[in-house]
Amino acid sequence: MTQSVDLNADMGESFGPWTMGDDASLLQVISSANVACGFHAGDPDVMSQTMATARDAGVGIGAHPGFLDLQGFGRRKMHVPHDTMANMVRYQLGAALAMARSVGTDVRHLKLHGALANMASVDHALARACYEGALDVCPDIIIMVLASTAMEEVARDLGCNWCGEIFADRAYNDDATLVDRSLPGAVIHDPAVAGPRILEMVQAGAIITEGGKKIQAPIDTICLHGDTPTAVALAKSVRQSLEDGGVEVRQFQGRVG
Amino acid sequence: MTQSVDLNADMGESFGPWTMGDDASLLQVISSANVACGFHAGDPDVMSQTMATARDAGVGIGAHPGFLDLQGFGRRKMHVPHDTMANMVRYQLGAALAMARSVGTDVRHLKLHGALANMASVDHALARACYEGALDVCPDIIIMVLASTAMEEVARDLGCNWCGEIFADRAYNDDATLVDRSLPGAVIHDPAVAGPRILEMVQAGAIITEGGKKIQAPIDTICLHGDTPTAVALAKSVRQSLEDGGVEVRQFQGRVG
Amino acid sequence: MTQSVDLNADMGESFGPWTMGDDASLLQVISSANVACGFHAGDPDVMSQTMATARDAGVGIGAHPGFLDLQGFGRRKMHVPHDTMANMVRYQLGAALAMARSVGTDVRHLKLHGALANMASVDHALARACYEGALDVCPDIIIMVLASTAMEEVARDLGCNWCGEIFADRAYNDDATLVDRSLPGAVIHDPAVAGPRILEMVQAGAIITEGGKKIQAPIDTICLHGDTPTAVALAKSVRQSLEDGGVEVRQFQGRVG
Amino acid sequence: MTQSVDLNADMGESFGPWTMGDDASLLQVISSANVACGFHAGDPDVMSQTMATARDAGVGIGAHPGFLDLQGFGRRKMHVPHDTMANMVRYQLGAALAMARSVGTDVRHLKLHGALANMASVDHALARACYEGALDVCPDIIIMVLASTAMEEVARDLGCNWCGEIFADRAYNDDATLVDRSLPGAVIHDPAVAGPRILEMVQAGAIITEGGKKIQAPIDTICLHGDTPTAVALAKSVRQSLEDGGVEVRQFQGRVG
Repeated sequence: MTQSVDLNADMGESFGPWTMGDDASLLQVISSANVACGFHAGDPDVMSQTMATARDAGVGIGAHPGFLDLQGFGRRKMHVPHDTMANMVRYQLGAALAMARSVGTDVRHLKLHGALANMASVDHALARACYEGALDVCPDIIIMVLASTAMEEVARDLGCNWCGEIFADRAYNDDATLVDRSLPGAVIHDPAVAGPRILEMVQAGAIITEGGKKIQAPIDTICLHGDTPTAVALAKSVRQSLEDGGVEVRQFQGRVG
Repeated sequence: MTQSVDLNADMGESFGPWTMGDDASLLQVISSANVACGFHAGDPDVMSQTMATARDAGVGIGAHPGFLDLQGFGRRKMHVPHDTMANMVRYQLGAALAMARSVGTDVRHLKLHGALANMASVDHALARACYEGALDVCPDIIIMVLASTAMEEVARDLGCNWCGEIFADRAYNDDATLVDRSLPGAVIHDPAVAGPRILEMVQAGAIITEGGKKIQAPIDTICLHGDTPTAVALAKSVRQSLEDGGVEVRQFQGRVG
Repeated sequence: MTQSVDLNADMGESFGPWTMGDDASLLQVISSANVACGFHAGDPDVMSQTMATARDAGVGIGAHPGFLDLQGFGRRKMHVPHDTMANMVRYQLGAALAMARSVGTDVRHLKLHGALANMASVDHALARACYEGALDVCPDIIIMVLASTAMEEVARDLGCNWCGEIFADRAYNDDATLVDRSLPGAVIHDPAVAGPRILEMVQAGAIITEGGKKIQAPIDTICLHGDTPTAVALAKSVRQSLEDGGVEVRQFQGRVG
Repeated sequence: MTQSVDLNADMGESFGPWTMGDDASLLQVISSANVACGFHAGDPDVMSQTMATARDAGVGIGAHPGFLDLQGFGRRKMHVPHDTMANMVRYQLGAALAMARSVGTDVRHLKLHGALANMASVDHALARACYEGALDVCPDIIIMVLASTAMEEVARDLGCNWCGEIFADRAYNDDATLVDRSLPGAVIHDPAVAGPRILEMVQAGAIITEGGKKIQAPIDTICLHGDTPTAVALAKSVRQSLEDGGVEVRQFQGRVG
């Protein structure tokens, strides 16, 4: 049986008159798109156009809710009560569903954005509030979690559909957390390094840490970034390495439990 | 056969720490609630709480989209491109659907808010953009139109479900438009006047103008306001007059064509 | 020499169509008003009206900047880079100065709002960023600090004008921090208790803790709250107790160093 | 005496994570910069950075207030009550003053943005409300008006400092209004055309219409645009033509009356 993995990237992060990222190029490389829902980026027009383009490219669409913080792009930590956060996820997911339906497609997965994702990866209660909010609206939606974090534990515990994600461009510590961005080597900019490294992890079914340790992890999808100059080159390198290594790039199937 | 009519009012117009209106009292009187969707009023928490309360009161829930203008409460005219406005209606309706689903209920109708409603009542293309946007998301939703305006013509032309609305507290000109608010008698504040007047219109199936003219109109629902000191008293008077006159207060059924 | 103290309260916390607080009543009691600047509450119209009313009442006007979080009323912690926060304080203070000037008055002091104040009271670097931002715009402005916190230390260190504040309705721990709101007795609701307690502290020139300990503190102003049902009654009680005890209620003079 | 004229362009139109325009290149060409104030574009960080850069380039700084419509970039007409609009101008100007002061510079002029400018150019009462609002805050500020419009009449009538502006890239009708954008030739994209045309107008002290008519007008500054691909090329062409023709590019002096 051929091994496969999904490639995902954030999309639809333009807003009003401002554009961001090179969505058209990334759509040639990825198999799943995380579409901003208007709180930290995106607006109804941008969402509609992004989803129509993703639909045409055969790329799976995900809702990508974040904090209500446009100026901070959802990257500033906010301490929002969990009930409120759950309602904010419901609201954004509902908006995404409507925009998808109106261009004849659907929302397949949900991934938390930015600081909300960072906080939920170490806060079970926050992750649970967000995921329960989403599942109230779409019981079948696939929750994309950072593999081997609180997110994964919560998704397993909820018994919902989920898939595990690792980063293409970030180094890992021996406890499966990310190396702090301020340390050398934390972010991988070189496409020639990123591709083979990810192939090795996918084939091993494990996160390989800076120290060389292998941590078994559910690697269903690889997160690519779209907002840096080398983003598209790195994304293409990852895809090429995977395909050269016999790994098919294909939309993830949800796991349960 | 008993004659019936619906009573509707705007609800869920609180925002963050600020409250507005006396939703609890109005829910005792009305049969349909128009719930703000976060652009001109309301937020995810307010929407959720309002819908749960309406559900418990057996009141039908409508999405009530408006302009993206919180400070102006959606009452300032904005010239938004029609495609953008359609996407904004889709977005707000989708959010409303999600909030409704998460409290175990559904969105039955859609009514435009404030300046958007005023503009669409005389602008067929704008009304069409908004209604098509809503129908893309929910083909079966009932569109609430101001009776005998461009809105009604567009709804008939679209062949969708719709219902016709008149105001409990506004005087009408002989061409079925509203008497300008700046003129004496334009707004009816006296509960003792409003009730019998509405009963007469419902029984006649016609708008009765200031000049005494009767204009046949599809009167399926009566719009009550909730944001004035006398609002609840006036609403109760209208309901009492209707019931005393043998008209049952009941959720509207959609018309088609 | 007669002893005096200032009474301050937050004001101008309405927004667009939504009103909050009983500013008119509080203006009869206080000597300094902290006016919201549009980020967490207030809008240009509300600011203008509030400042005009405060001017007429002879009450000193302060700028009251907060986090950019209208829905959360600036009460949710946000992790904003210090340079950005300094710019946000400059922006809000500048707006407040303009609104004051246009109604023929001026901004005398600056007080941080809500979660920003809470965070700055224990984070010297954050307090310094906010205060330096304000002083860049108005070198003579009086910074209102929570007495015996990081805020006071920073203000002393900056060598700027400042004044120290304690709460009328909060109990203190033996280290001068506030008793956690979740504990019994943390918030004082009884006007008959609040008044004599504050008089005692002002006369002693010290915070008196729950345990009875006296901590010397620069008590230049007493913070009254305006957003609870008993707020005005409690405020009046405090003022009455002070006056009965021979303490004059008068605008604070700034300290230096 | 050498003839001189000012060149102005909109700047600081980035927001949060999104960038817009090529401010660095334009600052080499222009003598006055209109800085967005946070309502339609710009944020406190962007304002601060833009003003610091303009200061270093020796370019005069203007406040550029617009409608509160970030998504629509202030380009959508809004019907805002004049008193509210005046307060919004005061607020934005005050914020701009503070940001300027904190980087050691000052705000020299005020220019309305986008749809607000378009509306005020034909609505005396709206122009008056905006300008009076600005003058309440800064009695000496120079109001930049579209020459030969309602704006100019209002500025003359107010007896304030003002300067007149024409567009480098727009064709004019015989009544001094702009040729509608939907008509051929309305917008001038060719740098080789724009330069000599503007030189001719400046030397003639008149708007030269499509039909060849000369309308005497106070041409103190030429508006260049920064948000199109050819913007910088066109701006450079205008400056070169002016200098080749013996017209010095220099900050405008305000007129009175």
